[in-house]
Amino acid sequence: MTSFAWLKGHGTENDFVLLPDPDGTVHGDLDPGFVAALCDRRRGLGADGILRVVRSTADGGAEWFMDYRNADGSIAEMCGNGVRVFARYLADEGLVDTSGPVPVATRDGIKVVTYEVEPVETIAIDMGAPRLLGESKVAVDGRSYAARHVDVGNPHAVAFVDDLADAGTLLVEPQYDTEVYPAGVNIEFVERRGPQHVAMRVHERGAGETRSCGTGAVAVALAAAAADGVDPADGDVTYRVDVLGGTLHITWRGDGHAVLAGPAVIIARGDMTWLG
Amino acid sequence: MTSFAWLKGHGTENDFVLLPDPDGTVHGDLDPGFVAALCDRRRGLGADGILRVVRSTADGGAEWFMDYRNADGSIAEMCGNGVRVFARYLADEGLVDTSGPVPVATRDGIKVVTYEVEPVETIAIDMGAPRLLGESKVAVDGRSYAARHVDVGNPHAVAFVDDLADAGTLLVEPQYDTEVYPAGVNIEFVERRGPQHVAMRVHERGAGETRSCGTGAVAVALAAAAADGVDPADGDVTYRVDVLGGTLHITWRGDGHAVLAGPAVIIARGDMTWLG
Repeated sequence: MTSFAWLKGHGTENDFVLLPDPDGTVHGDLDPGFVAALCDRRRGLGADGILRVVRSTADGGAEWFMDYRNADGSIAEMCGNGVRVFARYLADEGLVDTSGPVPVATRDGIKVVTYEVEPVETIAIDMGAPRLLGESKVAVDGRSYAARHVDVGNPHAVAFVDDLADAGTLLVEPQYDTEVYPAGVNIEFVERRGPQHVAMRVHERGAGETRSCGTGAVAVALAAAAADGVDPADGDVTYRVDVLGGTLHITWRGDGHAVLAGPAVIIARGDMTWLG
Repeated sequence: MTSFAWLKGHGTENDFVLLPDPDGTVHGDLDPGFVAALCDRRRGLGADGILRVVRSTADGGAEWFMDYRNADGSIAEMCGNGVRVFARYLADEGLVDTSGPVPVATRDGIKVVTYEVEPVETIAIDMGAPRLLGESKVAVDGRSYAARHVDVGNPHAVAFVDDLADAGTLLVEPQYDTEVYPAGVNIEFVERRGPQHVAMRVHERGAGETRSCGTGAVAVALAAAAADGVDPADGDVTYRVDVLGGTLHITWRGDGHAVLAGPAVIIARGDMTWLG
């Protein structure tokens, strides 16, 4: 039996349990079994993942390290919506100066977060420079679609459809070219909603359909911009991407970096005695 | 912003947030919007329902009243697995004498709980006297099955199949006879596993497939006993019913009552400041 502080939060319904552990003395090296038990939605508290908040020991100017774990207890390098919820916690606690960019350490290196208040409260993260690659194909519900290959650190296949319903139930993984994606792929279906405004559904590699996917939204925005003949060298370009869990905005900058912006909220906090 | 005590628990993966409120001074008349927000699995804490623990004002000898709310904020009269988790809390807190039967007040009247330690720790609840009714039919995945109509306070249709996989994905409601069930029906598919041992899957009216259903397990046990030609007048008869979330035991007694027994656990407890 162990007691600890916790919070729960989400970014476009990608939800996390946060475990404050500034000096690493509360949880230390998180046990994968404990993480999986805590994230179980029926037998535990339930979440897509855990964000342990610990002071960073790495060089690079980041004071805080996001120790991110997947719901199954495994370690993941990065999670775009996770960093945004993590950054919301740092701001709410007054642990960072939100008037300028804030570096956050992750297993994928330093990520830079910015806090915006106007026109709506938003947390944005620099997702680095994604790469637009070639054309591939995906198939779902017996129909085949052209799909743009985008690398956002992880692989994506972005297919434009007339209607998001064309993606069907997404209960089974759509078919894709295993020669292009030997390690699997995240697959996005995209419907156009207006100028620089699209809606997407995503089938995440190993997870099935989810309510939101940060890297997926970035891949979709870049594929849409490319299809529209937009070049960020002519100036920053922003696409609105509606996901099932809310709305994200992706800005493709002149330096090639993509910035993922959207809401991140903490819904509860307290102390917990874990009995599971 | 409001702070309160909470626990989370489950009975065969039917999960609940418990809100201790002995004198009704903490939550009073729970707001449906708050209940729905708290039960949302992505934007809230997540649960199948809320169990507010409040001292009973009703006659009948029950000291505690289970104020049960569905995840959507609506009021439900009773929940078999909910009462068992509620009773686990009362026992853990030392609020009841577990050496004998404990009455618990619900909107469906007084329910009697018994605590068993051997052979395994179990909480049992008297579910009253279900009624075995006629034969009906259900259809799923293009195949039709005979189904026994059982009334456990709510309506059930119990169909025996060779293999639980025959029920398919259960993502859409199986077809049933709307003249027999004008207000809808809970549908169970049952596979025989051994003498007085079955496994089931359930499609709950209005909720889809769930991990466990207490009244469904009772209906299944009675339909199986009837098919086996068992008469409880010859002595209590117990069936083991495996659900997706665990194992339940149903005893059909000589007085016609069915007793639902199984595990109920509290997995975490603490204080929470709600910010959602």
